[in-house]
Amino acid sequence: MEIKVLKDILSANDQMAERNRAALDSKRVTAFNIMSSPGSGKTSLILETIRALRKQIRIGVIEGDIASSIDARTVGKEKVPVVQINTGGECHLEAGQVGRALESLPLDKLDLVMIENVGNLVCPGEFKLGEHKKVIILSVPEGDDKVHKYPLLFAMADAVVISKIDLLPYARFDVPAFLKALKGMNRKARVFQVSCTTHQGIEQWAKWVRSNTSR
Amino acid sequence: MEIKVLKDILSANDQMAERNRAALDSKRVTAFNIMSSPGSGKTSLILETIRALRKQIRIGVIEGDIASSIDARTVGKEKVPVVQINTGGECHLEAGQVGRALESLPLDKLDLVMIENVGNLVCPGEFKLGEHKKVIILSVPEGDDKVHKYPLLFAMADAVVISKIDLLPYARFDVPAFLKALKGMNRKARVFQVSCTTHQGIEQWAKWVRSNTSR
Repeated sequence: MEIKVLKDILSANDQMAERNRAALDSKRVTAFNIMSSPGSGKTSLILETIRALRKQIRIGVIEGDIASSIDARTVGKEKVPVVQINTGGECHLEAGQVGRALESLPLDKLDLVMIENVGNLVCPGEFKLGEHKKVIILSVPEGDDKVHKYPLLFAMADAVVISKIDLLPYARFDVPAFLKALKGMNRKARVFQVSCTTHQGIEQWAKWVRSNTSR
Repeated sequence: MEIKVLKDILSANDQMAERNRAALDSKRVTAFNIMSSPGSGKTSLILETIRALRKQIRIGVIEGDIASSIDARTVGKEKVPVVQINTGGECHLEAGQVGRALESLPLDKLDLVMIENVGNLVCPGEFKLGEHKKVIILSVPEGDDKVHKYPLLFAMADAVVISKIDLLPYARFDVPAFLKALKGMNRKARVFQVSCTTHQGIEQWAKWVRSNTSR
């Protein structure tokens, strides 16, 4: 019976995700679901993407956090449309919350919506939001063994961004070992190595974003 | 009705947590529940604690991971009793899993059990395990704004360990701002600043562990 309840919730979420997807597609807007641990650099990557592509595509942002509006205020300084979702304790975004956020965004004037999920390398993977691409960020200080420990998100990723690559000299992170582990689980994911401090790798990442935005 | 199911699960967990606590107390064994994001350094802190205190107290370890036994193998090299729990997808440890793990540990020969929870700064806070102390680790590269974004764990912490303090010169982490935010939410938590690479702060941390172990 518990399992039945869980299934009902999931399927309600999936239905809502499909509705989000249809709303996005009808406006020719692409959506990315950006997931990582707390502090891996989701907001920083979103900021870098806006700065790199603001002359080419129109970007809106949905910020998901348990509490606070720190990230929405940071992103808002870039003068792009941004909506903050506070989940009030929940460890992930759900499609219903994103649907309401999409209604607050001027979709007619956007090409891409970047959705920053709650910082959590586990639970967000279980909830579709209606996104076109799933982007997973792993920062160098977190270590290269995370594919084995948190397999779900890495298995479903369309792109994996290794962030804070400028910290490689100061942290134990074996890039070839990580890439090998990832390939064993997910052959299709594109991998980027970036630093939002030195801007290393941002150009390649922005190119991928651009080529995966439908406009 | 959904809420009722959730309540039933929580209360079953709480009952099991009380049973764990009674089993620990009857053997005069202290237990710490160690929680953090993925890659903040839970395993490294456990290793440093074992090395600092192995002549004073007898330590056992419970390793919680969604998948893999990487951490149990690492800790096992220190020749202490260790049990790996694989949650099989679940984003946190529950009291029932810890109860079975405790049965596999030689409690008669231990003073302290360090329980490494699944890497997740949200969900583990909702599930008591029967522990005596809750320890939250936040690593410097994660950033100093995490108290506001992930309030639950910081509010309940008995100790907060700022780890990877050797990375302060390379990351944006305002220690006074973090301490102020933490104090606004939790006045009782002891705070330690440590590096498992340079061993800075380990002695103070180990002293706190020693003085909070009942033996």
